[in-house]
Amino acid sequence: MTTKTITLSARPKGPVTRENFGLEQRADPVLSAGKLITRPLYLSVDPYMRGRMNDAKSYIAPFALGEPIESAGIARVVAVNSGSKFHVGDLVSGMMPWQELALVDEKAVRAASAELPLGAQLGALGMPGLTAYVGLFDIGQAKPGETVFVSAAAGAVGSVVGQLAKIHGCYVVGSAGSDDKVRYLKEELGFDAAFNYKTVDNQRSALREACPKGIDVYFDNVGGATLEAALFVCNVHARIPICGMISGYETASPEPGPSNLAILIQKRIRMEGFLVSDHSARMGKFASDAARWLAEGKLKVQETVVDGFENAPAAFIGLLRGDNVGKMLVRVSES
Amino acid sequence: MTTKTITLSARPKGPVTRENFGLEQRADPVLSAGKLITRPLYLSVDPYMRGRMNDAKSYIAPFALGEPIESAGIARVVAVNSGSKFHVGDLVSGMMPWQELALVDEKAVRAASAELPLGAQLGALGMPGLTAYVGLFDIGQAKPGETVFVSAAAGAVGSVVGQLAKIHGCYVVGSAGSDDKVRYLKEELGFDAAFNYKTVDNQRSALREACPKGIDVYFDNVGGATLEAALFVCNVHARIPICGMISGYETASPEPGPSNLAILIQKRIRMEGFLVSDHSARMGKFASDAARWLAEGKLKVQETVVDGFENAPAAFIGLLRGDNVGKMLVRVSES
Repeated sequence: MTTKTITLSARPKGPVTRENFGLEQRADPVLSAGKLITRPLYLSVDPYMRGRMNDAKSYIAPFALGEPIESAGIARVVAVNSGSKFHVGDLVSGMMPWQELALVDEKAVRAASAELPLGAQLGALGMPGLTAYVGLFDIGQAKPGETVFVSAAAGAVGSVVGQLAKIHGCYVVGSAGSDDKVRYLKEELGFDAAFNYKTVDNQRSALREACPKGIDVYFDNVGGATLEAALFVCNVHARIPICGMISGYETASPEPGPSNLAILIQKRIRMEGFLVSDHSARMGKFASDAARWLAEGKLKVQETVVDGFENAPAAFIGLLRGDNVGKMLVRVSES
Repeated sequence: MTTKTITLSARPKGPVTRENFGLEQRADPVLSAGKLITRPLYLSVDPYMRGRMNDAKSYIAPFALGEPIESAGIARVVAVNSGSKFHVGDLVSGMMPWQELALVDEKAVRAASAELPLGAQLGALGMPGLTAYVGLFDIGQAKPGETVFVSAAAGAVGSVVGQLAKIHGCYVVGSAGSDDKVRYLKEELGFDAAFNYKTVDNQRSALREACPKGIDVYFDNVGGATLEAALFVCNVHARIPICGMISGYETASPEPGPSNLAILIQKRIRMEGFLVSDHSARMGKFASDAARWLAEGKLKVQETVVDGFENAPAAFIGLLRGDNVGKMLVRVSES
């Protein structure tokens, strides 16, 4: 028996295409000590995965050429060793290979909730939500009344950043790459201001207009020209949690950085990169806060769902192109 | 009666030249309420002054065109109002105009010490020393055993950063712009390694070789290519206090920034600009520490002294060109 498997068939040079992925049949996994066999229900596609497609040393190993792509996912347990803490039928969440039947390490997954929406556990209630929470409050030290600007604001992380900042009493401004997203930010999520960075004449002017009191926290998901514009509009003692720099992920050669970094001195600005994986100790507090806000209707979950295991590469490519509103997910199976 | 005055006669476009300064006779100052008349003994030239020559809003007002240049200095009081806390003959330290007789606000100066070397009060024991102290310990959070890299390491701030880091038990690496400076860092100041950034093939390789355990704190005085190289060699959770970006001060148009800022995320690096003026509350602790280290011979004071009031512009131009080792000073008068 064989199982469908999506692999990295070629490393991208510049934008990712379908040709970078292979779809093949592999022998079904065989249970071994400390492992589970699982069947994915939802697979997550996330911007950081673009970095793993390059053969470059980073905080996480690159995908191996010819081997399965791996991402966060929610799966159903289909086989366990006797004595495992998991049971057949359990829902688990964690990193998993893109295979219709997968062998995963017991320690690499944790129990998922059957009560909470499955997709949300990969988004607003999961790692992207915790990323927003840690970046905004721990790294960014956002305070009520301050102005928070977030880029890629309609994305999985950005849409939570904006909502958390609103809950916290901040003035919230977002940038996104389409008029529909801008409308969504203002009308659905209650952002105080938002703009389409692709159509404004000049991001710096757009930011000055959108942030009449200047920026106190810039939650950076994109880097590049948006970071440069934001630096001009930052207030003294602004904080810039750096979560992602997606504007540079698909360029074949490195883009120059902002030409105005000396503003960091003039305005005594702190810029700090962070990875959610360093902050898993905050998951408990975040999960209880987020569940409460969800129940109270203060935190809205938005997803763009692509159906079908074989469409996972297309979902990922769409994510990098900015097709999604909210969390981009691949629904492999309903149950 | 008139007094010699050095003014900003034209704003520089690119490198500063003698033509940017005027030398004129102005009417002698007349004492008024809340003021002192002083005669400068030493005037300081500092890199940040380059920013004040531009007509650009910043944390400190630009020099006014046609008006005296202003800098830190040590001066002798020559006239006071009755009831002033100062007396004729007192030594004072603070911001003062480049005039042989100057009218200064009483509140803009403080008593200087007749016991401590006068030049050092503008350098290792003054603002540049406090800048090094705050940047290394408060912003940079340097810990014993860590590797500290400092650029412009033979300058007024850098030479103190390196010495404080050695006192603190760090492994200390510096870059500078001449072989003589490199020799001075290693032989006189006890740096563990140093290199001439102008002659190495590649700063990134030079840094890798000089910092076998990677960089934990990069004290940035220069920005530009050195910052980019340092980011590559930084360790996880490195700190980058940003004190200056002198590499960009003399360029006619802004230089692009480092192309590798995404490393901030991968390595969870904190980059933070600071101004010593925010940290004057640390002066007491610093001054007592520095006086002790000076007495113990652990802190060496190095100065490059240019004699004569009229040579202040030349001293400043030399500073921007990197002619100085240690603090660059203008000696106007011995007493």
